[in-house]
Amino acid sequence: MSDFTLGLVGVGKIVRDQHLPAIAATPNCHLVATADPYTSLPDLPGYQGLEAMLDAHPDIDAVAICTPTHLRYSQARAALLRGKHVLLEKPPGATLSEVEDLIATASRQGVSLFAAWHSRFAPGVAQARKWLSERQVQRVEIEWKEDVRVWHPGQAWIWEVGGMGVFDPGINALSIATAILPQPFFLQKARLQVPSNAQTPIAAELSFTDPEGALIEADFDFRQPGPPTWDMHIDSDGSRLSLTQGGCRLVIDDDVLIDAEEREYQGLYARFGELITKKRSEVDVAPLRQVADAFLYGHRETTDAFIE
Amino acid sequence: MSDFTLGLVGVGKIVRDQHLPAIAATPNCHLVATADPYTSLPDLPGYQGLEAMLDAHPDIDAVAICTPTHLRYSQARAALLRGKHVLLEKPPGATLSEVEDLIATASRQGVSLFAAWHSRFAPGVAQARKWLSERQVQRVEIEWKEDVRVWHPGQAWIWEVGGMGVFDPGINALSIATAILPQPFFLQKARLQVPSNAQTPIAAELSFTDPEGALIEADFDFRQPGPPTWDMHIDSDGSRLSLTQGGCRLVIDDDVLIDAEEREYQGLYARFGELITKKRSEVDVAPLRQVADAFLYGHRETTDAFIE
Repeated sequence: MSDFTLGLVGVGKIVRDQHLPAIAATPNCHLVATADPYTSLPDLPGYQGLEAMLDAHPDIDAVAICTPTHLRYSQARAALLRGKHVLLEKPPGATLSEVEDLIATASRQGVSLFAAWHSRFAPGVAQARKWLSERQVQRVEIEWKEDVRVWHPGQAWIWEVGGMGVFDPGINALSIATAILPQPFFLQKARLQVPSNAQTPIAAELSFTDPEGALIEADFDFRQPGPPTWDMHIDSDGSRLSLTQGGCRLVIDDDVLIDAEEREYQGLYARFGELITKKRSEVDVAPLRQVADAFLYGHRETTDAFIE
Repeated sequence: MSDFTLGLVGVGKIVRDQHLPAIAATPNCHLVATADPYTSLPDLPGYQGLEAMLDAHPDIDAVAICTPTHLRYSQARAALLRGKHVLLEKPPGATLSEVEDLIATASRQGVSLFAAWHSRFAPGVAQARKWLSERQVQRVEIEWKEDVRVWHPGQAWIWEVGGMGVFDPGINALSIATAILPQPFFLQKARLQVPSNAQTPIAAELSFTDPEGALIEADFDFRQPGPPTWDMHIDSDGSRLSLTQGGCRLVIDDDVLIDAEEREYQGLYARFGELITKKRSEVDVAPLRQVADAFLYGHRETTDAFIE
């Protein structure tokens, strides 16, 4: 795989927690500079914004965009128009329409655009997808529950429009389900519980079906005390596949097939390098489309105010 | 254009008001039967459902699906799987995900799928699009206001999930704007006013931009007494295009270019016949995607209960 130089746009919690260690562990990816008006990294040139970074380092091949969602479109577009390959943190945009335009722009520019759904790189996902690919699914139960105070401390943006509330983690579940289930699936009914002082749901119960009539149910909740539950169970032709712990553990009919540490972001940067080498893009909007469908077609109920 | 036989699925107000006169005025379209559990038409075989209609008339070439939105996916899929061409009333589905699957199914089956955005067939739309195609747009103002009590009397479904509230007419404006504007556009900000006893907005203020930074504003309101306003004004390179009266009247810089009666559904059936003849599909999801984006990214405010 060819080497590439990288600029990071936005240096927040996810970059420090996940991107930096993954980049350090990816031999062909060379971090050159960062762009962030508020912060920078030791021993690395830091700039106020994307354009300043690219002006100073015209040799940068690719950028990873990790800024708040509503900023991503214009930054990604500017980078694509300067001929850079672009990795977009999840979700790839604040709206579906702007992501469609980025896809068209990358295609015109002949560069790689990668919508990075990190959960798809969890250890058990590839094997789960392979096992399911030739099977018929009857029933799916998805539970994605965590304590928002533990996992998103002080992140008030999550309650504002664009923050998506419990769909911020829930979209990870949807990114796995849309990757491993052998058929597309569609929302039939949704109940969204929205705190009286918020714009986005704190909990969601979703019921989907697929073209063959499978029942797919998802339960997202931000109010679970104690350890998180990031599990899905899939019944298929008399067998049961369980992908639990966010995709780290894969069990089929009581056989533990995978039980591994997560290294999602390493997988993600390896894939980005592959896409650049092969001159391809990979932008699956299906997870974000499912969230938009839930907002469009879900029944809203007001629940207790959320006080952190 | 080749002749085709048609079955109507769902015989409601829109069928009686619009589809039947348009079909009667389309010489190559031959209406054979209807499917509706509650009603039928005089002098035409009527069936309880789609499958019964197609069993009794296997020679039917095409169906037009005019049932409530949440029923359309399974009916359209069944028709496509039986090799029928399908016209979908607007909007083409309750969710974007199900529409994507219909597109894939039609493509596999080698039949025509047509998502019918009737407002795109208003008299002034084609010329507006042509005039704008080579221009740069600076500013767009869309006003789509009507009295819901006059235009949707007793239609309680409009306030339930899937009914879309003021976006039911507003999507007509979006179907025109996405057709005539030379660039795609993306939501930047939205304010949705939702009655305290409803799920869907009674009014919406939307602000979009395009890749060149044009300002596109839309004001949808269901509370306008008196005559409706279905207008858009587009400023481009020192000229102003006004497409008003739902697209019936086109004025550029005070020159009245078109002022005609609407015959949208005739245009729509002519287009369906063309697509069947050319073995093509036409499913532009952009208007529904814009509505989903507004539900995903719009700021909701509660307003007075709606009492009809």
